[in-house]
Amino acid sequence: MTDIATRVYNHTWKIDPIVRSVLDTDFYKLLMAQTIFRRHKAVQVTFGIINRTTSVRLAHLIDIGELKEQLDHIRTLRLSRGESTFLRGNMFYGKRQMFSPEFIQWLESFRFPDYHLERKGDQYELKFEGPWIETSMWEIPALAVLMELHSRSVTKGLGKFELQVLYARAMTRVWEKIGRLKQLPDLSIADFGTRRRHGFLWQDWCVQAMIEGLGNAFLGTSNCLIAMRREVEAIGTNAHELPMVYCALARNDKELAEAPYRVLADWQEDYDGNLRVMLPDTYGSRGFLDRAPDWVKHWTGLRVDSGDPIEGGEIAIDWWRRRGQDPHRKLAIFSDGLDVDAIERIHAHFHGRMRIGYGWGTLLTNDFRGLGPDGGLDPFSIVCKVISANGRPAVKLSDNPIKATGPQAEVERYRRVFDVGAQASLPVAV
Amino acid sequence: MTDIATRVYNHTWKIDPIVRSVLDTDFYKLLMAQTIFRRHKAVQVTFGIINRTTSVRLAHLIDIGELKEQLDHIRTLRLSRGESTFLRGNMFYGKRQMFSPEFIQWLESFRFPDYHLERKGDQYELKFEGPWIETSMWEIPALAVLMELHSRSVTKGLGKFELQVLYARAMTRVWEKIGRLKQLPDLSIADFGTRRRHGFLWQDWCVQAMIEGLGNAFLGTSNCLIAMRREVEAIGTNAHELPMVYCALARNDKELAEAPYRVLADWQEDYDGNLRVMLPDTYGSRGFLDRAPDWVKHWTGLRVDSGDPIEGGEIAIDWWRRRGQDPHRKLAIFSDGLDVDAIERIHAHFHGRMRIGYGWGTLLTNDFRGLGPDGGLDPFSIVCKVISANGRPAVKLSDNPIKATGPQAEVERYRRVFDVGAQASLPVAV
Repeated sequence: MTDIATRVYNHTWKIDPIVRSVLDTDFYKLLMAQTIFRRHKAVQVTFGIINRTTSVRLAHLIDIGELKEQLDHIRTLRLSRGESTFLRGNMFYGKRQMFSPEFIQWLESFRFPDYHLERKGDQYELKFEGPWIETSMWEIPALAVLMELHSRSVTKGLGKFELQVLYARAMTRVWEKIGRLKQLPDLSIADFGTRRRHGFLWQDWCVQAMIEGLGNAFLGTSNCLIAMRREVEAIGTNAHELPMVYCALARNDKELAEAPYRVLADWQEDYDGNLRVMLPDTYGSRGFLDRAPDWVKHWTGLRVDSGDPIEGGEIAIDWWRRRGQDPHRKLAIFSDGLDVDAIERIHAHFHGRMRIGYGWGTLLTNDFRGLGPDGGLDPFSIVCKVISANGRPAVKLSDNPIKATGPQAEVERYRRVFDVGAQASLPVAV
Repeated sequence: MTDIATRVYNHTWKIDPIVRSVLDTDFYKLLMAQTIFRRHKAVQVTFGIINRTTSVRLAHLIDIGELKEQLDHIRTLRLSRGESTFLRGNMFYGKRQMFSPEFIQWLESFRFPDYHLERKGDQYELKFEGPWIETSMWEIPALAVLMELHSRSVTKGLGKFELQVLYARAMTRVWEKIGRLKQLPDLSIADFGTRRRHGFLWQDWCVQAMIEGLGNAFLGTSNCLIAMRREVEAIGTNAHELPMVYCALARNDKELAEAPYRVLADWQEDYDGNLRVMLPDTYGSRGFLDRAPDWVKHWTGLRVDSGDPIEGGEIAIDWWRRRGQDPHRKLAIFSDGLDVDAIERIHAHFHGRMRIGYGWGTLLTNDFRGLGPDGGLDPFSIVCKVISANGRPAVKLSDNPIKATGPQAEVERYRRVFDVGAQASLPVAV
């Protein structure tokens, strides 16, 4: 029997919306939003999309009208009552009432602000200008929309069974990866793949496969909506946008040099335990750690998000030791373009030497390499980054110079202030 | 929205029936039934299940109560009005009214007769005794039920995602086979996989994948129900049961030697064109062809169903030439345990030398080799064969002595009468 009502109802949708909930975003966005809400409501920040893989000509693949429809749909979203209840009542990182009533009240009233969309040659310019706390919320849904419209464009025209086998192959691939991960002792891994996922339903499938396949070794997902629906932990801490904005607002070189530590000082007022995981690579990990005030050594851990992961982990262990800390009690979260090969290599190298976690992103939720027609579903690297704060340019250096962003003169100034020497370039796949 | 009515309705099923239609059977059963209906209504034939793969202990894997429920459900089936209309109105092998009104009237009133089921050690004894035309109808559904209960038993206890990936892998495998078959010039291939399918839905999936993937190179399916639903050709001719019964009924060695040709004489009264495809291997192909009356050379083709397929094809070409026939106008249908490797080999050898067709069976609709837990879904060889006709034992020799059936003394007598010399044993996988 066909459910006629469902079928007729489905016909009333004008579009097939990609992002259907304010919570279809990464958990760190909410944690950062609360910190911004408490301290930086007046700061104006511009975010912009950068497609690092220019060979993927998004403006040819994605219809601008469909892109607008999806972005406009996101602007109609509001936090639902059940979602609000989840944020108020759920335990996050072992703690109840992670979010203050004032912040949740703000989130309930939140609407996504306007966007600026323009075609520029083969690519789209997509920018968000306005209060930091509002524009920041666009990062994940904007990327998710572009990624999924790209997937839809590439798969359009495939036959029904061709499509089914496409997903069958991708499922088998994920499952075989899970099978390999199962072998790793004391594994702790989370899904970090929202922003560059193949599509929402696919991310949801991957999370459920991880739940069944990995059991307790699967820590949870960075996606708040999926965490809520699948009843797993919402995972995440903070991102480069915090030091980037703090640094952009610095009035001189001295304030600039101190700004990354001010991020930590503020953060530790708001969050503790496993949320005190720093992201040292924004302006070079080694210098960041060497120059860190002594109280930073008490943080639970750090994230290795660019550069060679083995080198990044060794720098961390070395730093903890020099600061008199026992690395076995410290946590390193690896999260840069991971796939199973890298995870196995990192695990073999560091297991037993410190606590380890993995944030598995694009190659969990979007590994269709070789499966799409003409490689059309192969990964590409697209980010949504802070361009400026209160009109001043924002800069990121990273541990991999290919990932650097910002005007050249400012990049040079930052390299001088943060004493970043020669850096090895590594290929960026995702 | 959940369709409440559907859900409640589904709960009212006592079992999940495997065979749900009289037409969920092979087309050749109906063609043979019409021939039996016209000539042999009074003949009593016993069919019995033989599981050649004794290492698969069916009585341990399949609950006898569930088996009975499935067989009893089949006994409740009757030809539906739409199915009857299909048989009356559809064109089969280019011909309208393939089935006489009298035969369809009989089929409308047909009910599956009783069965005899008993556990014998690790296996089940499952026999059907009664009028040939009725017991013959049990062959395909009985095998389909045993196969699918076996599949269900092996997959019971698998997780939801484990199951999904199991089917994802099987789908990918079928699709990759189809991709290889696409490369073959002038391919003509049909699904012959009903009797030893993994399950009904899986066979239906395979047929649809062949439709999309192979286009016109896919000739159709032997399964009448799927042919009707998917609007493709119903494919099939005749089987060993015809010469086996005709031979069992022979009163002396002379009649025995002539019986296989009486099958053809009767058949060509009923069917012409591409349905005049003989099955020469029941008592040795070489002798059958050598001793055939001259009119047999006018038949359209033959089926190579046991022994080495290259040798079988060469025997056919040689015979046609010796009888003054042009092999290019003749048809050989290969149907013995085929998979893509064999099809490619046969095609490379014979393409351009005669018309070729492939009946792809178990390794299309049941290739789960290595995919089930502990190889539990690996193929096994189960058949439903004529045991006796009017109380006299039935014998099959085949071109592969491993496939021979019947009492030893009778097998020896048949070998003498049909002058079957030394035969090479070939492994029987499916």
